Amino acid sequence: MNIHAALDALEAFLGQRLSRSKSDLSLHGESETHFPRMPPDAVAYPETTAEVSRIMQICARHGCPVIAWGAGTSLEGHTSAVKGGVTLDMGRMNRVLDIQAADMDVRVQPGVTREALNAELRATGLFFPIDPGANATLGGMAATRASGTTAVRYGTMRDNVLALEVVLADGRVIRTGTRARKSSAGYDLTALFVGSEGTLGIITELTLRLHGQPEAISAGVCAFEGFHGAVNAVIETIQMGLPLARMEFLDEASAAAVNAYAGMTFPEKPHLLFELHGSPDSVAEDAQRFGDIVTDHGSSGFEWSDRTQDRKTLWAMRHNAFYAILALRPGARSLVTDICVPISRLAQAVEETRADIAQSGLAGPILGHVGDGNFHAILLVDPAEPSEMAAAKAVSHRMVKRSLALGGTATGEHGVGLGKRDYMAKEHGDGWAVMGQLKQALDPLDLLNPGKLVP
Amino acid sequence: MNIHAALDALEAFLGQRLSRSKSDLSLHGESETHFPRMPPDAVAYPETTAEVSRIMQICARHGCPVIAWGAGTSLEGHTSAVKGGVTLDMGRMNRVLDIQAADMDVRVQPGVTREALNAELRATGLFFPIDPGANATLGGMAATRASGTTAVRYGTMRDNVLALEVVLADGRVIRTGTRARKSSAGYDLTALFVGSEGTLGIITELTLRLHGQPEAISAGVCAFEGFHGAVNAVIETIQMGLPLARMEFLDEASAAAVNAYAGMTFPEKPHLLFELHGSPDSVAEDAQRFGDIVTDHGSSGFEWSDRTQDRKTLWAMRHNAFYAILALRPGARSLVTDICVPISRLAQAVEETRADIAQSGLAGPILGHVGDGNFHAILLVDPAEPSEMAAAKAVSHRMVKRSLALGGTATGEHGVGLGKRDYMAKEHGDGWAVMGQLKQALDPLDLLNPGKLVP
Repeated sequence: MNIHAALDALEAFLGQRLSRSKSDLSLHGESETHFPRMPPDAVAYPETTAEVSRIMQICARHGCPVIAWGAGTSLEGHTSAVKGGVTLDMGRMNRVLDIQAADMDVRVQPGVTREALNAELRATGLFFPIDPGANATLGGMAATRASGTTAVRYGTMRDNVLALEVVLADGRVIRTGTRARKSSAGYDLTALFVGSEGTLGIITELTLRLHGQPEAISAGVCAFEGFHGAVNAVIETIQMGLPLARMEFLDEASAAAVNAYAGMTFPEKPHLLFELHGSPDSVAEDAQRFGDIVTDHGSSGFEWSDRTQDRKTLWAMRHNAFYAILALRPGARSLVTDICVPISRLAQAVEETRADIAQSGLAGPILGHVGDGNFHAILLVDPAEPSEMAAAKAVSHRMVKRSLALGGTATGEHGVGLGKRDYMAKEHGDGWAVMGQLKQALDPLDLLNPGKLVP
Repeated sequence: MNIHAALDALEAFLGQRLSRSKSDLSLHGESETHFPRMPPDAVAYPETTAEVSRIMQICARHGCPVIAWGAGTSLEGHTSAVKGGVTLDMGRMNRVLDIQAADMDVRVQPGVTREALNAELRATGLFFPIDPGANATLGGMAATRASGTTAVRYGTMRDNVLALEVVLADGRVIRTGTRARKSSAGYDLTALFVGSEGTLGIITELTLRLHGQPEAISAGVCAFEGFHGAVNAVIETIQMGLPLARMEFLDEASAAAVNAYAGMTFPEKPHLLFELHGSPDSVAEDAQRFGDIVTDHGSSGFEWSDRTQDRKTLWAMRHNAFYAILALRPGARSLVTDICVPISRLAQAVEETRADIAQSGLAGPILGHVGDGNFHAILLVDPAEPSEMAAAKAVSHRMVKRSLALGGTATGEHGVGLGKRDYMAKEHGDGWAVMGQLKQALDPLDLLNPGKLVP
């Protein structure tokens, strides 16, 4: 491994678009959560697939690690340069290449953010629904198999990436998938790269599935006396097959944080936030049925609104909940957990987690995409107090153990990165070794995001 | 490679459950379509995962090929024993293991057929929607990434397999996926094995996603003066986001075949057959909107029915269309094509295919799952006339070329097997080499269904 030789060659190739400035390195070594800063040796700003391919060839020749970077909104340390090397900032590959409205698909470069894409789509009557909260890049969202508030209706990135262009560790460029809606033509390479977290290749183009902008949207919020009512209302809604487009849970501590941060006036109780998409008739019918369910589970009823501004306020509030919770304790860092269990086990998983957090003495509001069985506790720790981080890690550890025991997963949507790697053997058994074999087959020199995900 | 030593060891292990009877070998060497009979050297009937693992270990030691067998309904020669070896008939592993109604999932052994599963589910209010027509096994359906008439609404096997148990080439048993609805915990091994056609491992258990039996179902049929009207009605329906549960096309020749075979009285015109699932109100609303669309495209309107018996007759007829078409020419064999294109290219793809078949002089009715952009021509050939088979292969070849040029795939749902292997390099480019690298990583001795799918 000769990183310096690689950097010299890259500099000769990219000129100013290879940065070694301290601020650039530091920025690309940051984590949104509790991981220590681990900067790369350089940051490259490629502008074309051919450049990415050439960069990979140079790095392969010199054994230099390569880490792909989208918007840096990952929560599990995915982009930390644990072995140094070059971070590829894909931000300049940010063009929407081809909107095929009749086929409801779009081809984009990986640095396009989801908000930028939706702005571009506005006039077409179509939209890209996956919404992890942060304004992540689509390349990053594919790499981490992101989902978020709308997965309960529209699925995750797994379900909405039709095709990819990928640069492999040796610089070869492949295209996976086609624009056809389905195919049985061999191994599903698209699905293999979605969620591979930059360890198998660099995504340089994506073909995404679009959806029709709903004719009617209604959003609303309802409070419950206790979290059991809220969780059971979710379970019944899913089991009845009511097609809610979003169904989010905020516990009382999260509601309080949002009130303080955004000047809202939610009662300090567990809440469900929800949204319905459809025709005006179907939305009205579904709202009626959902209203019956929440009333049965002890909510005093819900407020809902068809007004765009009200909806925007509601979801902006939900999306800022992470920052609202961080603001509860100035100077704190967060450890964000992310388990996902079968829906029948959701009440048990939330209840045991609440009790565990209470016993730990930490602040740890709970919120999440409960329609999928997925929820997060945001554990707040003083970075200067090692005992607090240890307590938070212990809570997180028990949450994962609980999730696996209940038939769930260690990470519903945040990915493995550094934070969940230690659980992969437990979750997958020999399947983790198989992941290692696949990695070895496609990246035998371990150039691509080394130290992450695989054994 | 020492097949005989393997068979001796397998016989010592399995006793009577290793068959070398002529009729068994012949049956397991058959193809539903035009492929020559290629029987294995023996057929094993395992009853447990542990037995499959032990069989794989024995075969690995002796370098003996292993081919998994479900119901033998594959259309692309997937189960042909091109290098001899042992066929694993999974028919005895046919138990429904665990229905989790609250989570809408079920764990089954691979030899359970889709009809057997749905019979077992009837009282639960749930069903498994994927319907390729044939009463295939669920293991076989997963291995070929099957879909069929309901994919337009419920997706394919890709979308409905949550988790798998797989025996690898070296006998290791892994579990992929969990019962959680989503996960970002590493490479999507479930998606890798779905569609791998028995070349990466033997599926010994599946966890499947279930759906609620719709409250209301309506099915119907409408005739068009020309195929353009039918195809354009499909395109508009998809683009408007109308959630039809099935949307099938039969051309005039297919309609005539069905009339002759099943005593039906369809006008000899292009038809759409369709089905709606939902609440009584939503089905009525959708039927109204669909009626407007087909009328706009020149149909004289449709007949539809909520009666179970009428629906059963309609879909039995559709499912027997393959045999009805075969019966048009007694003694004929079929070459069944299977292309899938972006919906905006569907009219062009069908039109050019019709013209091509007409010019070839062959009988080749067209039908398919046009809601996905997927259709089949069933080319009838006299097996004693090599020139006819050559003409059919040439038509099929041009169809694939056309599909790829239009942004589609060589196979929408039938898989690669022997029949589409020659197109994989063209469809995937270097991606096919990547598939070969994955195969090499997991099955370095090329034991699992050799001669299929990969380079």
